[in-house]
Amino acid sequence: MTDETYKKFFSDDVGSFFRSPVRDIFKKVDLNAIFSFAGGYPPADAFPMEEIRQITGEVIDKYGAKCFQYGATQGVTELRQAIADRYSENIERVQITSSSQQGIDVCTRILVNPGDVVLTSNPSYLGALQSFSSYRADIVGVSHSNVLHTYEQSWRLAIEQCLKKQKHIKFLYMIPDFQNPSGETLTLEERKLLVNLAREYDFLIIEDSPYRELRYEGEAVPTMYSLAPDRVLHLGSFSKIFAPGFRLGWILGAPELLDKIYVCKQSLDLCPPIMDQYIAAEFMASGRIDRNIERNISLYRHKRDILLGLLKQYMPEEVIWTHPEGGLFLYLTLPEGFDSVAFYDKALTAGVAYVAGSFFRTDKQGKNTMRLNFSFMKEERMEPGIKLLSTLIKEQLNA
Amino acid sequence: MTDETYKKFFSDDVGSFFRSPVRDIFKKVDLNAIFSFAGGYPPADAFPMEEIRQITGEVIDKYGAKCFQYGATQGVTELRQAIADRYSENIERVQITSSSQQGIDVCTRILVNPGDVVLTSNPSYLGALQSFSSYRADIVGVSHSNVLHTYEQSWRLAIEQCLKKQKHIKFLYMIPDFQNPSGETLTLEERKLLVNLAREYDFLIIEDSPYRELRYEGEAVPTMYSLAPDRVLHLGSFSKIFAPGFRLGWILGAPELLDKIYVCKQSLDLCPPIMDQYIAAEFMASGRIDRNIERNISLYRHKRDILLGLLKQYMPEEVIWTHPEGGLFLYLTLPEGFDSVAFYDKALTAGVAYVAGSFFRTDKQGKNTMRLNFSFMKEERMEPGIKLLSTLIKEQLNA
Repeated sequence: MTDETYKKFFSDDVGSFFRSPVRDIFKKVDLNAIFSFAGGYPPADAFPMEEIRQITGEVIDKYGAKCFQYGATQGVTELRQAIADRYSENIERVQITSSSQQGIDVCTRILVNPGDVVLTSNPSYLGALQSFSSYRADIVGVSHSNVLHTYEQSWRLAIEQCLKKQKHIKFLYMIPDFQNPSGETLTLEERKLLVNLAREYDFLIIEDSPYRELRYEGEAVPTMYSLAPDRVLHLGSFSKIFAPGFRLGWILGAPELLDKIYVCKQSLDLCPPIMDQYIAAEFMASGRIDRNIERNISLYRHKRDILLGLLKQYMPEEVIWTHPEGGLFLYLTLPEGFDSVAFYDKALTAGVAYVAGSFFRTDKQGKNTMRLNFSFMKEERMEPGIKLLSTLIKEQLNA
Repeated sequence: MTDETYKKFFSDDVGSFFRSPVRDIFKKVDLNAIFSFAGGYPPADAFPMEEIRQITGEVIDKYGAKCFQYGATQGVTELRQAIADRYSENIERVQITSSSQQGIDVCTRILVNPGDVVLTSNPSYLGALQSFSSYRADIVGVSHSNVLHTYEQSWRLAIEQCLKKQKHIKFLYMIPDFQNPSGETLTLEERKLLVNLAREYDFLIIEDSPYRELRYEGEAVPTMYSLAPDRVLHLGSFSKIFAPGFRLGWILGAPELLDKIYVCKQSLDLCPPIMDQYIAAEFMASGRIDRNIERNISLYRHKRDILLGLLKQYMPEEVIWTHPEGGLFLYLTLPEGFDSVAFYDKALTAGVAYVAGSFFRTDKQGKNTMRLNFSFMKEERMEPGIKLLSTLIKEQLNA
């Protein structure tokens, strides 16, 4: 059968699937062979390898065959309880997911009909945009940097426009801490504003929080979930504080919402991987996770500082960038007219990778932006990498 | 907010979600405290615990940080290759899934619009019915035991009725080997017939094959996939031949179909768990999986024979059952009028569990049937379990 023959079998959703350009980059190149500021990967030395090996032995001893058996759809009790404790929450408000990406996907699945509005910031996390689009949501991205309006006005305008079109706004998706890709953090006032808008216009909020514990300076800001626990679904992840290979995350939320997620997850994949959950639970219970987070904070803070220093040293004056207080990314803005998508092939051929900022947007804007990751690359490779990228950018600007 | 307040947020799909009565049974009772013929669980002694512990150490040594890093959406190459080799297939036709249940779900997702027809046998696997229903498929179950028509006539009648209603039949879902729940196996002629119907009426086939390698007698029948590799998506699972806790499965199929599954899986959960995949790959590459399957075959064949003997010894004459050549289940048919759903509470209170056969059906029939599992229970508990169940059934029949 040909490609054409299969077309008639596909569901309407398939027409709205789009590929991750980031994942496609990773398929094509060996990230260790180039200067890669592209991915959101932890570096190899961030993983507590020996501890994991040891804990794996411990959990097989402790739980025996339970490690390899089917388990509860909500996740194993030990892990749910450890997460509940970390938030001072009730275990009934915790669902374990087979990755935080699954958290985004399953929330969208239970909430969005084709044409329903999902509000988000512009830029926003690519994997979330993929998921929203795959359910044919009407994704409405709101830009922060609108000089004509205040932060509040920008959101109100976007919301009012949706209502004028008689659209049902189902939820607002935000990464309030050290956003991917911008690296920016919402202030408490901004969080309160968004929660109040959700109450006023009666929509839910999905607070995606994979980087929250990786803060390198400043004070932690309360989660949006803590401001409105019945209206906010809070997504957490082990990917940046333990290891992404385990594909484990969690959802905190109202039991009425979690109940639908529970039934959905029965048919999605029955339950998250069991031994991995026990390993994560043991990692938390023993307090080893806190030492690991501290270690990662030192590691990443140092790399962030190096990157900030190198950008100052090598980038042309016209280029500006964000100063992230945590997380894995910063966001570069080049002069108007610079096309970071078109520029990408040249950069990759020369041996340096980034992700074009426009990939993170719902509009066609942001061509003059790029996301740089500072967690993955080896320290000693950062200077030649930024030197190369800066030289290429200068050449392009002077061309 | 109240339950009622949340209702307006839910997608239309949620209205078609239904809970697994099997999973709900497991939430309520400790399976080790009763005589449970209910689940489809392997017994604790089926897991190669020491081997897994050893292999885990080996893969951490061999692959290092790769075990804990993000990985390819299609699955790690070593595992895809091992599965490709097992089927003498090209690696491009293999997608690793985060459980075989995910295989069912993602295939349905890319194929089914609300109202599209999914054909299946009556009875059929409950987790598949949950998934089809969650996408609002029109599930058309075809009974084998229709005395008025041949096997072929039954299928043709069902198909023609769908076409008369101008329904789009997207696929046929079957478990050809040692079906869950019936324990029955399709003959080669039946497989060829279904494949030819798929060609004639232009629909796809999802061949769900989690038990295929657990054959206790007779000759293996070719897969439907081997009869029509471009029209059949073949689903495999590590749950019954290794350990369900790893939540790993695979899909074999045409690259045109796998490509959509690949893009969908990017937004579903990015990639399957990595260390678990390396463990499974190592378990296969070293040949240990074949020794494990042999060991499990001996274990389960023995238990099946015990169960068949006990049923013959204790069940009233009016009760009949299937003789499975493999897998984990057999299917009991009681006299017309017996209600195994209503009877269930009495049985559970007395200390014995099964799954009511009507849960596996799309019509309201089959109330006089039940599924019995013979893999999970300890050998020495099978006789008192069946004795108890038989006594209760006799009492009920004589009441």
